Amino acid sequence: MLDKVRPNTQLGEVVKQFNSTRELTERLCQSLDVEDYNLQAIAETSPVKWHLAHTSWFFETFILKHYAKSFEPYHPQFEYLFNSYYNAVGKQFRRPERHLLSRPTVGQIFDYRQKVTEAVNQLLALSGAESDAEPSAGYDVELLSLIVLGIHHEQQHQELLLTDLKYNFYQNPLYPSYLSQAPSKAKQSQPEKMAWIEFGSELCSIGADLSDQSRFKFDNETPQHQHFINGFKVANRLVTNEEYIEFIEQGGYEASELWLSDGWEAKKHKDWQAPLYWFKKNGEWYHFTFNGIERVIGEEPVAHVSFYEAQAFAEWQGARLLTEQEWERIAKEQEVRGSFLESENYSPSQPEKTGHAVTQMYGELWQWTSSSYSPYPGYQPLAGAVGEYNGKFMANQFVLRGGSCVSSQSHLRHTYRNFFYPDARWQFSGIRLAKDL
Amino acid sequence: MLDKVRPNTQLGEVVKQFNSTRELTERLCQSLDVEDYNLQAIAETSPVKWHLAHTSWFFETFILKHYAKSFEPYHPQFEYLFNSYYNAVGKQFRRPERHLLSRPTVGQIFDYRQKVTEAVNQLLALSGAESDAEPSAGYDVELLSLIVLGIHHEQQHQELLLTDLKYNFYQNPLYPSYLSQAPSKAKQSQPEKMAWIEFGSELCSIGADLSDQSRFKFDNETPQHQHFINGFKVANRLVTNEEYIEFIEQGGYEASELWLSDGWEAKKHKDWQAPLYWFKKNGEWYHFTFNGIERVIGEEPVAHVSFYEAQAFAEWQGARLLTEQEWERIAKEQEVRGSFLESENYSPSQPEKTGHAVTQMYGELWQWTSSSYSPYPGYQPLAGAVGEYNGKFMANQFVLRGGSCVSSQSHLRHTYRNFFYPDARWQFSGIRLAKDL
Amino acid sequence: MLDKVRPNTQLGEVVKQFNSTRELTERLCQSLDVEDYNLQAIAETSPVKWHLAHTSWFFETFILKHYAKSFEPYHPQFEYLFNSYYNAVGKQFRRPERHLLSRPTVGQIFDYRQKVTEAVNQLLALSGAESDAEPSAGYDVELLSLIVLGIHHEQQHQELLLTDLKYNFYQNPLYPSYLSQAPSKAKQSQPEKMAWIEFGSELCSIGADLSDQSRFKFDNETPQHQHFINGFKVANRLVTNEEYIEFIEQGGYEASELWLSDGWEAKKHKDWQAPLYWFKKNGEWYHFTFNGIERVIGEEPVAHVSFYEAQAFAEWQGARLLTEQEWERIAKEQEVRGSFLESENYSPSQPEKTGHAVTQMYGELWQWTSSSYSPYPGYQPLAGAVGEYNGKFMANQFVLRGGSCVSSQSHLRHTYRNFFYPDARWQFSGIRLAKDL
Amino acid sequence: MLDKVRPNTQLGEVVKQFNSTRELTERLCQSLDVEDYNLQAIAETSPVKWHLAHTSWFFETFILKHYAKSFEPYHPQFEYLFNSYYNAVGKQFRRPERHLLSRPTVGQIFDYRQKVTEAVNQLLALSGAESDAEPSAGYDVELLSLIVLGIHHEQQHQELLLTDLKYNFYQNPLYPSYLSQAPSKAKQSQPEKMAWIEFGSELCSIGADLSDQSRFKFDNETPQHQHFINGFKVANRLVTNEEYIEFIEQGGYEASELWLSDGWEAKKHKDWQAPLYWFKKNGEWYHFTFNGIERVIGEEPVAHVSFYEAQAFAEWQGARLLTEQEWERIAKEQEVRGSFLESENYSPSQPEKTGHAVTQMYGELWQWTSSSYSPYPGYQPLAGAVGEYNGKFMANQFVLRGGSCVSSQSHLRHTYRNFFYPDARWQFSGIRLAKDL
Repeated sequence: MLDKVRPNTQLGEVVKQFNSTRELTERLCQSLDVEDYNLQAIAETSPVKWHLAHTSWFFETFILKHYAKSFEPYHPQFEYLFNSYYNAVGKQFRRPERHLLSRPTVGQIFDYRQKVTEAVNQLLALSGAESDAEPSAGYDVELLSLIVLGIHHEQQHQELLLTDLKYNFYQNPLYPSYLSQAPSKAKQSQPEKMAWIEFGSELCSIGADLSDQSRFKFDNETPQHQHFINGFKVANRLVTNEEYIEFIEQGGYEASELWLSDGWEAKKHKDWQAPLYWFKKNGEWYHFTFNGIERVIGEEPVAHVSFYEAQAFAEWQGARLLTEQEWERIAKEQEVRGSFLESENYSPSQPEKTGHAVTQMYGELWQWTSSSYSPYPGYQPLAGAVGEYNGKFMANQFVLRGGSCVSSQSHLRHTYRNFFYPDARWQFSGIRLAKDL
Repeated sequence: MLDKVRPNTQLGEVVKQFNSTRELTERLCQSLDVEDYNLQAIAETSPVKWHLAHTSWFFETFILKHYAKSFEPYHPQFEYLFNSYYNAVGKQFRRPERHLLSRPTVGQIFDYRQKVTEAVNQLLALSGAESDAEPSAGYDVELLSLIVLGIHHEQQHQELLLTDLKYNFYQNPLYPSYLSQAPSKAKQSQPEKMAWIEFGSELCSIGADLSDQSRFKFDNETPQHQHFINGFKVANRLVTNEEYIEFIEQGGYEASELWLSDGWEAKKHKDWQAPLYWFKKNGEWYHFTFNGIERVIGEEPVAHVSFYEAQAFAEWQGARLLTEQEWERIAKEQEVRGSFLESENYSPSQPEKTGHAVTQMYGELWQWTSSSYSPYPGYQPLAGAVGEYNGKFMANQFVLRGGSCVSSQSHLRHTYRNFFYPDARWQFSGIRLAKDL
Repeated sequence: MLDKVRPNTQLGEVVKQFNSTRELTERLCQSLDVEDYNLQAIAETSPVKWHLAHTSWFFETFILKHYAKSFEPYHPQFEYLFNSYYNAVGKQFRRPERHLLSRPTVGQIFDYRQKVTEAVNQLLALSGAESDAEPSAGYDVELLSLIVLGIHHEQQHQELLLTDLKYNFYQNPLYPSYLSQAPSKAKQSQPEKMAWIEFGSELCSIGADLSDQSRFKFDNETPQHQHFINGFKVANRLVTNEEYIEFIEQGGYEASELWLSDGWEAKKHKDWQAPLYWFKKNGEWYHFTFNGIERVIGEEPVAHVSFYEAQAFAEWQGARLLTEQEWERIAKEQEVRGSFLESENYSPSQPEKTGHAVTQMYGELWQWTSSSYSPYPGYQPLAGAVGEYNGKFMANQFVLRGGSCVSSQSHLRHTYRNFFYPDARWQFSGIRLAKDL
Repeated sequence: MLDKVRPNTQLGEVVKQFNSTRELTERLCQSLDVEDYNLQAIAETSPVKWHLAHTSWFFETFILKHYAKSFEPYHPQFEYLFNSYYNAVGKQFRRPERHLLSRPTVGQIFDYRQKVTEAVNQLLALSGAESDAEPSAGYDVELLSLIVLGIHHEQQHQELLLTDLKYNFYQNPLYPSYLSQAPSKAKQSQPEKMAWIEFGSELCSIGADLSDQSRFKFDNETPQHQHFINGFKVANRLVTNEEYIEFIEQGGYEASELWLSDGWEAKKHKDWQAPLYWFKKNGEWYHFTFNGIERVIGEEPVAHVSFYEAQAFAEWQGARLLTEQEWERIAKEQEVRGSFLESENYSPSQPEKTGHAVTQMYGELWQWTSSSYSPYPGYQPLAGAVGEYNGKFMANQFVLRGGSCVSSQSHLRHTYRNFFYPDARWQFSGIRLAKDL
C-alpha cells in the first residue's frame, strides 16, 4: 500500500532507510563465494544474484523509469531478465531457470546495484530540493510512497535471499556453512511450560487504516474492517522441537486421520518424515542450519514445517491453529520484539520466561494460521503494475503472521500478512496452538 | 451432521425418503447402455456403476455392519473396491482406475443395491417395532441419523453421477445423448436485465444450529456463529451466456491482468478459451449438453466455468463474487425454488421476470463464492469414520452455494456448503456478481 | 509384404482363411461379459471392442473403400475412431482413451463386423467370377494380397486381444478368469535339462525372398540378404520358472551390474521385483493367468519378462541372448510346431524331452533377441498407407522371434519378426540363452 | 579397451600425452568467468566444473587409489560427488543437480586437478624407473593401459565440456560468446556438388583387433569380426544448411510420412521446427554459435540435428543413412583429417573440393548412422568397474561415426563408435546420405 507520506518531514528518513536497506542486502552476501550466487534448486528458490538484481530492477522499473530525467536503462534486457511476475511490465525470463544466467556476472550486478542506488539518491535529492518549495506536491508524495514500497520490497527479498540460500546450500552433501562461526544465543535455565491465555468474544477491528499516513502497509492489509471473533485461548509460546519430536515418534507421520486430505497426499508424495532439514543419526535428531549440521535443541521452536504439518500437529494435540484475525487481535497489544535479522542469530530462539503472557509473537518464526489468503472486504489493489504485488496471489495460499529470525524488525507490524502455499517448508515457519473456549 | 431425529414421528418419513432416493438413483440410469456404466475420463469422474455401488457401500459399511443382526457383507472385497476415501475404514482401490473394474457386472451391482435396500428396510422395520416400545432409545436415534446421512450422501452422488457422465460422454466424438428428447423449457419473452439489490452492514448469524433437530445438515455447516458482513449489492440474476460471450470476444481469455496468478497458469496450462463443453463453428457458439450438441442460448446462465473464470469475469465487470456469508445472508430469506433434478431439464434455465428481487439463488447453477472452504469457528467433525466426510477437505477448495439443475430440491438449504477445487469445471457451476456498497 | 498370389488356384483358400479368421476372433470373446469389452489400463492395451472394430476397419479402409462397387462406409466416423496409427488415412482418436468409447456398443460392433465380413465375401465372390475369365488380372492379385495382409493383421490382433485382456483383467482385485476351466496340459515325468547345441560360423541367407509368391510375409522380413554369423551355441529349451526364481532369490533384481543402464532405470522406476503377474505369498510364488491366480510351476518356461530382465538373467548366467539372425539360422531347419492358440492352453508348456535338439522354438513364448528392430539391407516398405504397417517403428524396439501360446500356428514362420519396446512385459515373452563358441 | 602397451618404448609418449591433455582441458576454460563453470540446463549437460573434476576423479579412482603408494583421497566426498555412473565404485550424486554444487569452488577444483596431475606424473616416474629394470612387468602394462584410457576419457569430456557449455549458454537471452573473436575459416569459391560414390558387396572385417597393441581402442570396438555388406553408394560430402533449409521450407517438419513413429512423437512433443539453435528473423535463418548469434551459411554442413531429423531428411531425399559398418568400410581407407578441436574453429567447415572422393569423414560433424548401438559378436566388457564404461549403454542409442570440429584429432579412428539417444541434438551431429545400389 502506498502511504501518502509527507515529504517535508519524512524525506530524510526515507533516504536513510533506503541506503541502509541497500547496504544490508549487500552485507548479507559478504561470506559468499562467487559460485554461491547462482544456486537454484527449485523454481521457488531464486539465486542470490537474482535477488540482488531484481530488487534493483524494482526501483528502476517502477521509479527511475517514470521519475528520473533522461532515464536510460542500465541494460536493455534487464527489464526482461529480472522481472519476477509483473505481466503489465512485460514478459519474464522463465522462473525455474534463473540459475542459467551466468551473465551478467556477480560483479556486473553489484555495479548495477550501485548505479541504481546512486540514481535513486540523486532523484531524492532533487525531489527534496523541489519539495521544499512546494511541500504538498502530489508528485513527490507518490514518488516517496513508491520508494518506501521499494524498501519494503527489498526487505522481503533479504529474507528470501537467506531462506532460498539455506535451501540451496542444503542440496550440497558438503553442507556449506553460511556463518563463519556459530551465533551465541542466550539459553534459559528452564524451558517455558506451555500455558493457555484466554481471549473473549469480540467484534474486532482488523487490518490497517487506509487513511493513516503515519506508517507503511501493503495493500493486502487494507481496508480496516470489522470482524467478529469468538472466544478462544492461545498457547503462550511456539511449539518446541521436543514437542514435535514426540509427535514424530508417536507416529504422527503415519496417522492419516490427523491430516487434511491434501496434506496427506503431499506427505506421501514428498515422503515427509520430519521437518525440512532434519535427519536422525544414531538415535539423535540433527538439522541443517546456517551454521552447517547441528543437533536439534529440544527447547527451541520447531521450524520449517508446512501448513499441513502444523495442522496435523495441532490436531494431534486436540488443538487448532489461530485464524489470522485471532492472531492480530493478540498482536495488536504487543510491541514488535523478538529475535530478528538484526540479531544475526539466523535461527529461532527459545522463549523468555515471562509468566502468564503470550510470547514469541514476532521474530523467531512465521506462524501458520488457519486462514486462506483472501481479500479483505472492500479490498482494492494498488493502481498500475504494482497492483500485481499482492492481489493476484489471493487463492490457494495460507496466511502466516508474525515474522522470523531472518525478517527485519522494521518490516513487521501486527497487520502484516505473509502468505505461502500450504506445502511450503523452506521458510522459517512454525506452529502456535489455539483452542476454542 | 447427524441430526438427533425423533424416531417415533419421523421413522415413516425416513423409510419413504430412503426408498424414493434409492429408486431415483436407478431411474437416472434407465437410458444407459451397459457399456456406458464404466466410463471414467479422469480421476474426478467416477463411473456410473461405481456411484451405484458406493452409495450402497455407504449403507453397508456405516449402518448394516454395525446395526444389522448376523450381518454378512454382500462380497468380501466390496469394502475395499467401493470405499471412496475413508481411511478409517481401510485401504481403497485406486481412484483413477475405477473404470478397470468390469466385474462386478452392472447386473451384479443392481443386485447388490437391491440386497442393501432390502436389508436397510428390514432394519428400519425392526427398529420401528422396537422404538414403539421404547421411544427414546438412543440406538434408534443414531441409526436414523446415519440413514438420513446416507440419503443425503446418495443425493450428492446422483448429481455426481450425472455431471461425471456428461464429462465422460463428452470424450466420445459421437457425442452420445443422455436424453431421448430435448426437454421443453419455458422461455421468457424478454430477458431479465441485470439489476443490483443492496444489503446493509450487519452482524449476521451464519451456519446451522446444532441443537435444531428438525432438519438435516452436514457437520461442515455447523456451528452457527456470528459473522460481520459489510454492506454490499448483488446481481438480481446469474451471468448469462450472452454476457460471457462478450467477455470471450473482448479478449477476456488473453488479458492476464484480469486473472488470479494461479488462474492464469491454469488457463494457459489447460488452454481454456471458453467454458467447458463450448466450441465455435461458423461464427456460432455450440456446447455439449445432455441432449447432444446444441446452440448456446444467450439468455441462459453460463455454466461449466471454473472459479478462476468466474473471478476473471467479475474482475472484467468491475465486480466481484459474493462471499459465502453474503450469499447465505440473501438466501435465508428465500424459499428453495428453481429448476432442479426433479424438473428433468438437466440444464439451467433463464430467470423468471420478478421485478426487483434476487432470483436464481437455488437450482440452475451452483454459484462460486470468493470464500475458501474452511472450518467454521468451533467446528467439530462427526465422530468415527464418517468424520472424514467433510472436514479433511478444508484446504485449497472454494465454496459454492445454491444448487443446480441436477440437484434434488430436498437436498438443498441456505446453509448448505458445496466445495470444489478452483479449476473444476465439470460441475454445473455459474457466476453471480456482487459489489461493495 | 503383399504377395503376388495367383487368384485362380488360391482364391478358395483365401476365402476359407478369411472366414475362419473372422470367426476365431469372435469365438475368443464368447466367455466375456459386455462390461469386459472396454477395459484399457494403459495406452498399449486396447479394449477388446476396439480390436474387434479395428480389424474390420482394416478391411473397410484398405480394401472395401477401394475395390467394392458403390462402397458406403458403415459409419462416417469409424474411419477416425478405429484408425490405429495410419497418418496417411487421417487423424486418429487418441490412443490412451479408447476405453472412453462406450458407443458404438458391443452389439453394434458385432454388426459392423458382420457387414464387413459379408462385403468382403461378396467382393471375393465377384472377383473369383471375374478372375476365371481373366486369370492374370493385376486387379485381383493386388486385392487378394491385401486380403491376405488383412488376415494376418487380424491374427496379430487376436493375440493382442488376449494379451491386452490379461493385463486389463489383472488390474481388478477380483482377478477375473477368462477360462471357465483350467486347461489340462501334458506334464513331463522329468524336466528337460539345460543343454547346449553348437552352430558353426556361416555366411547365412536371412529374411524372406521377395520373389517367392508361395507364402505370405510382412515387408519387414524382406529382402533376403546375406549375413555373417559367428559360431555360437544355444540352449536346447527356454529358461524355466525354477531357474528364474533362483535368479530372483539370489538377488538378481538388486544387482545393478547385471543390468543395462536403461534397464536398471526401468527396474527402479517401475519397482520390478519379479516377472509381471507374479507375487509371493507364504513363501510360494503365484501368478495371474487366464485361469485366475495359480501356483507358478517350476518346469514351465518363465513368461512376461522384459528385454531388460531377459538380458540381466542371461548376464547372470554368463550367457547372452541370441541375435535374430542366429535364431533364424536355427529355426529354418525346424517345423512350426509347439503350443499355439489352437491348443487352447493360453499358457506356455514345459518342453518335450527330445534328446539333443533345440526345442520350443515356436509356440509357448516369444523369445527376446539382442537385435534392435532395424530395416534389413535394401528394405522397402509397401506402397501407400499400408507402408506405415511396419517400417515406421524401426527404432528403439527389440526383435522377438518364434511365437507364443496365443499365436495362431498359421501366422508364424522362421523369418517372422515381432518387435516390442524393451520394457514391455505384457506379451508372452520369454528367454532363450546363447553363448559364443 | 585397455591396450597392452609396451612400457619401455611408450612411457615417454604417454607422459607427454597425459600432460598435454590435462593442459588442453584447462586451456578450454580460459575465456570463462567463474559464474560460467556451474551451468546445467538439463541432466545431460554437466557443468564445466563437473567435467574438470570428474576427469580428475577418473585418474584418482581407477589409478591412484590402486597404484599410488600411501594414497590419500584429495577429499573424502569427491568419490561420491564426481562419480558419473559407476555403480561398482559406489553411489553417485544426482546427475540433474550437479549445478547445485557451488562448493568445491572453481579454485578448489583447479587445485584438485593439479594435485591429481602431479600424483599421476609421480606414479609414472616411479613406474618408468621400475620398468627399466623389469620391462615386461604386468604391473606397468596395466597401469599404462589405464592411463591411456584416462587420457581418452578426458578427451571425450573436452568435447562434452564444449557441447554442454554451448547448450547452457544458449539458455541465456544475452547469448554469451565463448570466443573472443570469430574464427577465420577458409571459404571455397564454389560449393561442392553432391555426388555419389559406389562401393560393392563385400564380406568385411569390422572393428578393432584385440591383439593389436599398437593403438588404443575402447572395448566397444572389439572384437574384430566379419560382416557382410551389400553394395551401396554414399554421398561425397555432408548435407549442407542450404539443402536442409529446403527440407524445412518444403514442409519436412509437417510431413509425418517422412518420420519414424517415435521421431514424429519427439518432434511434436518438443515442437521441433528446425535444427537446435536455429531461428528465423526477417526471412533469414540465424543460429547460436560459440561466437554468439550468426547468420546460417548455406554451404556449411547442417549440425545439431537428431537421429530422427537425419532419418526424415534422408527419407525426403529418397535416400537413407549409412550403417556403421558401411561407414567404417569407407573410412578405413582414409586418413583422419578434417577440422578438429585443434583448428579452433568450433564449428563445421564446408568441404574442400576434392573431385570424386568421399570427404568430411572425420572432423566437422559426427554422422548419425542407422545402426543401433549393440555389442559386436563376442564382445566382452573390460573387467572391473571400468567395464561400466561402454557396455551397459548398449540399448536404445544410435551409433555416430567420424568425429567433430570439437573432437581432438588424436582421439579418432575408423573403428571409433560414438553413441547418443536418437533425440539428442546438442552434439555436433550431422547427416551423410547413402543409397542402395
